[in-house]
Order: sequence, then structure tokens, then C-alpha cells
Amino acid sequence: MDVDATPAPLLIARKRDGGELTPDEFRGLVTRFLSGAVDDAQMSAFLMAGVLRGFTEAEAVALTDVLLASGDSVDLSDLTGPTVDKHSTGGVGDTTTLVVAPILAAAGCRVAKLSGRGLGHTGGTLDKIEAIPGFRTGLSVAELHAQVERVGLAVAAATADLVPADKRLYALRDVTGTVPSPALIASSVMSKKLAGGASTIVLDVKVGDGAFLASEAEARALADLCVRIGTAHGRRTGALVTDMSQPLGDAIGNALDVAEAVEVLRGEARGRLRTVALALAAAALELVGRAPEEAAAEAAGLLDDGSALERFRALVAAQGGDPAVADAPRDVLPRAPHVVTWAPPAGTVTGVACRRLGELAGSLGAGRSRQGEEVDPAVGLELLVRVGDAVGPDRPAVRIHARTAAEAERAAEVLPALVTVGGDPAPEVPLVLARIGLGPDRPGR
Amino acid sequence: MDVDATPAPLLIARKRDGGELTPDEFRGLVTRFLSGAVDDAQMSAFLMAGVLRGFTEAEAVALTDVLLASGDSVDLSDLTGPTVDKHSTGGVGDTTTLVVAPILAAAGCRVAKLSGRGLGHTGGTLDKIEAIPGFRTGLSVAELHAQVERVGLAVAAATADLVPADKRLYALRDVTGTVPSPALIASSVMSKKLAGGASTIVLDVKVGDGAFLASEAEARALADLCVRIGTAHGRRTGALVTDMSQPLGDAIGNALDVAEAVEVLRGEARGRLRTVALALAAAALELVGRAPEEAAAEAAGLLDDGSALERFRALVAAQGGDPAVADAPRDVLPRAPHVVTWAPPAGTVTGVACRRLGELAGSLGAGRSRQGEEVDPAVGLELLVRVGDAVGPDRPAVRIHARTAAEAERAAEVLPALVTVGGDPAPEVPLVLARIGLGPDRPGR
Repeated sequence: MDVDATPAPLLIARKRDGGELTPDEFRGLVTRFLSGAVDDAQMSAFLMAGVLRGFTEAEAVALTDVLLASGDSVDLSDLTGPTVDKHSTGGVGDTTTLVVAPILAAAGCRVAKLSGRGLGHTGGTLDKIEAIPGFRTGLSVAELHAQVERVGLAVAAATADLVPADKRLYALRDVTGTVPSPALIASSVMSKKLAGGASTIVLDVKVGDGAFLASEAEARALADLCVRIGTAHGRRTGALVTDMSQPLGDAIGNALDVAEAVEVLRGEARGRLRTVALALAAAALELVGRAPEEAAAEAAGLLDDGSALERFRALVAAQGGDPAVADAPRDVLPRAPHVVTWAPPAGTVTGVACRRLGELAGSLGAGRSRQGEEVDPAVGLELLVRVGDAVGPDRPAVRIHARTAAEAERAAEVLPALVTVGGDPAPEVPLVLARIGLGPDRPGR
Repeated sequence: MDVDATPAPLLIARKRDGGELTPDEFRGLVTRFLSGAVDDAQMSAFLMAGVLRGFTEAEAVALTDVLLASGDSVDLSDLTGPTVDKHSTGGVGDTTTLVVAPILAAAGCRVAKLSGRGLGHTGGTLDKIEAIPGFRTGLSVAELHAQVERVGLAVAAATADLVPADKRLYALRDVTGTVPSPALIASSVMSKKLAGGASTIVLDVKVGDGAFLASEAEARALADLCVRIGTAHGRRTGALVTDMSQPLGDAIGNALDVAEAVEVLRGEARGRLRTVALALAAAALELVGRAPEEAAAEAAGLLDDGSALERFRALVAAQGGDPAVADAPRDVLPRAPHVVTWAPPAGTVTGVACRRLGELAGSLGAGRSRQGEEVDPAVGLELLVRVGDAVGPDRPAVRIHARTAAEAERAAEVLPALVTVGGDPAPEVPLVLARIGLGPDRPGR
């Protein structure tokens, strides 16, 4: 196909003045950026114009196309059963993948989960699952394919050949203040999901203090755009907008997150993490054809009867991990040498500073602030209470898992500012705020 | 002085979100761009954010400071008499400098006019005056200084050491769609005028089809900002906003422009060019202390009594040109080999496409579209009529000066689209639309 060669300054000026590029022009501009014919300075000026003037849905679709075309795609079309992928925009204590994927595998779906090592206060799914001793995420495409067919699910590192253009573009956006654009975020997320090859995609768009989107309206708009892009590419796509004003799970770390996910799979933990994981699993089942009223019951049944736990155990075994993690996670997973609890003065918890708790866990070693940094699997925080709970000297609020006593002490000094006791409680927010592309209005239903 | 080192992504994000940089932050950002610590992509994203969100006056002053500090400045403080510089934002048939500077020199001012070789449909002042055989514009600073003291005026090429940062920044803006910002334009213009060393600065901000600003409001805002920047730097600064909906002079070329300027100086041409040149000269005289009501009469007197023509002759002689150009310009200046007239069908002229006439002159060889291109001094167009004039087969509208018969013919084929005959006439627009920093409200008066 010929590449549109409209001079970059004209396209930049048009976007600056509030205009729109045709799909050919948009693809041509990005293609020439990738080949070096349009330089970084022109692309960043164009992106800033788009951040401030907005991109249309057609432009977001065109950008997704060119990102997708920049690398390889995984072909899952010959697998038995519907192929499903899941993505979360990221939050604090967010380990739903390790619960959702086993439920979907137990329901007969095929889940090939490709993850990157995200930047952030805590690691990505890859960092978390690698906390399981022996677990190997570097699968070849052939290994991934065979395992998903045999076991129903796999969690593997995305290779550099998948959507390389997204890496180029993101590196530029990261240093030029051009990250916050729904169209740029949606095309980045969706190009990777489309390259992953699943025919069904379910998204968890987080909103609130612990997420990068602060307003529900922004989150809905992003979810809506992602669903439209996926649908335009012939994938069954749905999204939930979920609350991140409090940590989702009680654990904020890597091994701690895995342990909590296993406890949800074992039926031992029944909090917010379980609720959102079930809602996401039900959304995926609905997308692959179950009636909405049956999907939720099926997901809960597969969790409660141990089928999902059994799929998790098979996943760990297939990728070289110690399957005993499914029976006694806290015995198998690495533990930090210094574990201390912190207790506030007596009173009632009225607020939890979600993002800052995540950052505190990151500063203990659970996350990375630069590409290539190692994360410590063992360290992190456990929230022992929630808003409305009583606390006091004999009722601690947080358990700190640290590498040294000094680091534990430093964390304890920060915590009084992050867990508020007394005053008016933070308002209750529903966990699932919106369902996009699901229910009776689902496209193609 | 320490350079502010706030990370560029933070400053970009702040401008993107509508915020303001402190003068130290702004100077630090640009200083680090010039040293390479902030890259082109970051600077262009920042500039685009500023184009769309706006820069404050304090930011424009800070940018002017750092541009000015990037190179040398000319020191004119020991010259006898007030030093004056003049700048036009550029238009079609705009040769006022060659009339204004001699009037001011005749009035006892010292005019050191430093010019660049602009891009555009016709050349800059430098290209025009070099059409005079022998005229040398490459003066050293010492030569410039001595000539201005002795003759009252000089027209010389700005050296590369004058405001080099403006060249760097403009080259980036030119390819990234970040030219149209009043603050960026004002700081570019004013840093060069301030480096030129004159204590009085008079600006001609053009508005209309043939100028780069289309609305009078934009032109007023730019003029106002330039005057504030100049005043903040201790220079007496004023501006006129003048109409560019029609070519200013009848000539559009280089030698043709010089010939028309000489004819104004000789009292032989009395049209729009003379009117605007007198208004600019009067504005400069007002800035150096004449009463407003006396300034206009003094400027007209010095033109009418031949004093200005005599200063022009001395200028040409001092810089090696043939002084006979002041007596018989069309005999001395180079002439194009193919001169033909174009006549429209009989009727009344109702419109003249100003910008496109300039572009047509440029396509004949009078202008340059890339740095370093040669301009042809001889070619161009002469407008023989104005809106409201009768034309017809025996009353031609345009005289074409071309290098070849084929080029002349091509121009004649384009002209019917540029000179409208019949229908409603274009509305009459006053020549001087606004006076900024002048009259009773002048700062410091």
C-alpha cells in the first residue's frame, strides 16, 4: 500500500487548528515517523496538538491499525473453544488476572495472557506470577499455543516483536507530556490486545485516586473508545469501569498479591478483589455467548467448586512453578525478613490514601520507576482494615513486609498520613461503576 | 546565574494543562534546549502546548531575555542623536524601510538597520537594496557604527552572532507547526531589535490577506506585546497596525521595489507606500520626543524638500552602490528581459488577490522558498491599477517582468484569477488601523 506523504507540517497545523486527518493521512504520518522520515519533534508537536484538540474515533482506529501492523500477531484461531484476553489499566492491589484467567479456563475458554513489565508502584502480572518459585514466563509462541490448548491458559512475557511501534511512540510520549489522551491510550492498549490474537477482549478500566484516570467520565470515554476499536477489528470487546479509590485487594506487593489471589481461588478471601474478578469473568463469559443472567452464576460456581483453583494449579505446573502454591501460598512464596504491624491510635478508619499506599509499597521495592529495574517479590504492604473498621493499639491497620528493619520503620513513619482515623468517613463508592459493550446493547448481539 | 533545572516533562505538562512558568523556569527550559539537555521533541511539544494554551506577557519577556542573551548585541550608545530601528512583519509590495530610514536620518536620527534574508514571496530589505549595482551589505560592526555616525543610516546584513538562539528555535518552529503564537513571534522580533542596539524601535504590524496575520485583533495583540517587551527592556517602542489587504506599493519585486521607493523619495509617487512610510517616520519622531502634531509635518517636509532623497543617495554611495540610482532608478537598476503588460476585459477592478500576487512574483524568481536560494533582482510585477479603476484592452492592469517569454506568458495566464473585474468592489479599509504605544498614552511620556 502506498504511504500518504502529505507534508508533516501541514498535518500538524491542521490538527493544531482543530481539524481531522483522514485514516490514510494518519497512517502515513505514523508510518513515516517509524521510518524516520517524520522526526521526533514533528511527531511530539502533532501529539500535543491532539492531546489538546482531541482525536476522533476514526483517527484512533487508524493509529491502532498502524501500530498493529508494525509487528507480529499471535494466531490463536485454531484453538478449541473461544479465545479470551483481559486487560486492566492498572491500580493498587489489582491481581484480578490470576483469578479471572483460571475461572475462564475452567469455563472452557482459552486464555493466552501476554504481559509486559509495567512501570508503577507495584509490578505487572508478569512480576507477580514470577514470585512463584520456578515459574517461567519466557514462552515461545509455539509453547504458548500448545499450553493454552492443553491447559486452557498461559501467562507469558510479550516479545519485542509484538507492536514495536507502540514502544517507540510511548517512549516519546513519556518525555513530552503527551500521555494523557484517550485515543493514544486506547490505541496503545488495543493494538497490543489485537496482536495477542484473542477473539474476545475484556477490559477493566480503573478510576479514582489509585488509577491514572481521576474522573468516571474520562474512564467511561476511554472504555467506550477501546470497545469501539476492538469491535471495529472484529473482536467481541467489553469493558467494566471499576473503582480504584481504595486498594482493590488487601495485599500490595508481588508475592503478597499472588497469595491473596490464591486465597480468593480457595474461597478463603471474599473481599473486593473477589467481587471485581467475578464481574470481569462474568463479562467475558457474556461476550463469548452466555446469557447475562447465567454468566455471573457460572463464574461464581467455577470459583466455589474448586475448578478455577485446579486450573491455576495446572497453569503453575505447566510453566515450571511449584504447584504447592495453590495449597499453602504463604509457605511457598518468598517472605520478607522484616514483617511488622503498624497500629494507629484508637478510632474508626475514615480514609485510605490509595495511590500513596501503592507508592509506599513501591518504595519498599515492590515496583520499578525505570525500565529494567528489578522488583523484590517479597516486600509490600497488607491492609488489615477498611474504611469503617475500628482500629487501635491492639487492632493494627497495616502489616509491613520490608527488606530491613530500617525500611520497615520508615514505612511506619509514613503510614499515619495515609490511613485516616476519625472525622467523616470517605463516601461509599460502588465497585463496578459502568458496563460498556455488555448487556442487551452489546454490539453484534 | 544558575539555570533552573525543573524536569522538562513537568514544565510541558504544566503548560499543557494551562499553567504558567516562572521567568526562571522559562529561561532554564530554553537554555537547556540550546545546550541540548532538553531535546527538540520536548521543546516542540512545549511550544505546541503554548501555541494552543497561550503564553503570558511575563513568559514572552523571559523568552526574549534568553534569546537576546544567546548572542552579541550592537552598542550604539555613543552615537550622536537618537538611535532608531524599524521592523515590518512583512507583506506584499512593502518597501517602507527605504523611505523611512532616509527621512529619519534627515531628521537627525541614527538608523542602523540590520536585516536578514527572509523567506517569502519577495525578498527582504537586504535583497531589495542589493538590487542596486555595487551595493555591499556585509559591513563589520565597526564599519556599521562609523557609517551611521557619519551618514546617519546604514543597511547591513545581520551577522550569525546576533541572536543565534532565535535561528535554532525558528528552524524548529518552522517544521512543527508552532509558528503562529503572538508571544513566540514577538520574542523573535524583539530579541533581534534589542540586539540591534537602537534606543527607539518602531514596528509595522501588517494585517490582511497579504500578511501572515488575518485579523486586526491578532495584529493589535502582537503589536501590544512587542511594545510591552521593548518598553520592559528600556527602549522607546511604538507600533502601527497597517492594512495589507492590497499590495502596499505598486511594485512587487526587488529592483522594482527600490525604483518605487526612490520615486516616493523624489516626490514622483504619492500612493499607499508614501502614506504608510510617512506614518511610520512620524511615529518614530514622536517616540524620540517630537510632539505628535509636529512629527507628521516634519516627516512630510523632509520628504518633500529632498532631504530624505539626499540621505538615500549618501547611503548608497557609502555602501558602494551607484548613487545615480537616486536620479534615474529605472536606468541604473537591472531590468528583466521580458516585460509585457496584461489587460483584463473592459470593466472596473473590484478586487486584487494580494497574497497570490506576491506568490506569483515569487514564482517569477523574486522570492525564495528555501534558505540560501538566490533571488532574481529584476523580475516581478507592477500593479498599474487599484480597486475602483477602469481597465480594458487598452488599459492594462499589470506589467509582468520575467526572465523568459514563457514565464511571462504563464504569469499572464494566472492573472485573471487574481485581478477581479466586475461585481461588488472590495470594501475600503483605512491604511493605518491602529497606533500602539504612541500618542498621549505612550509609556513614559
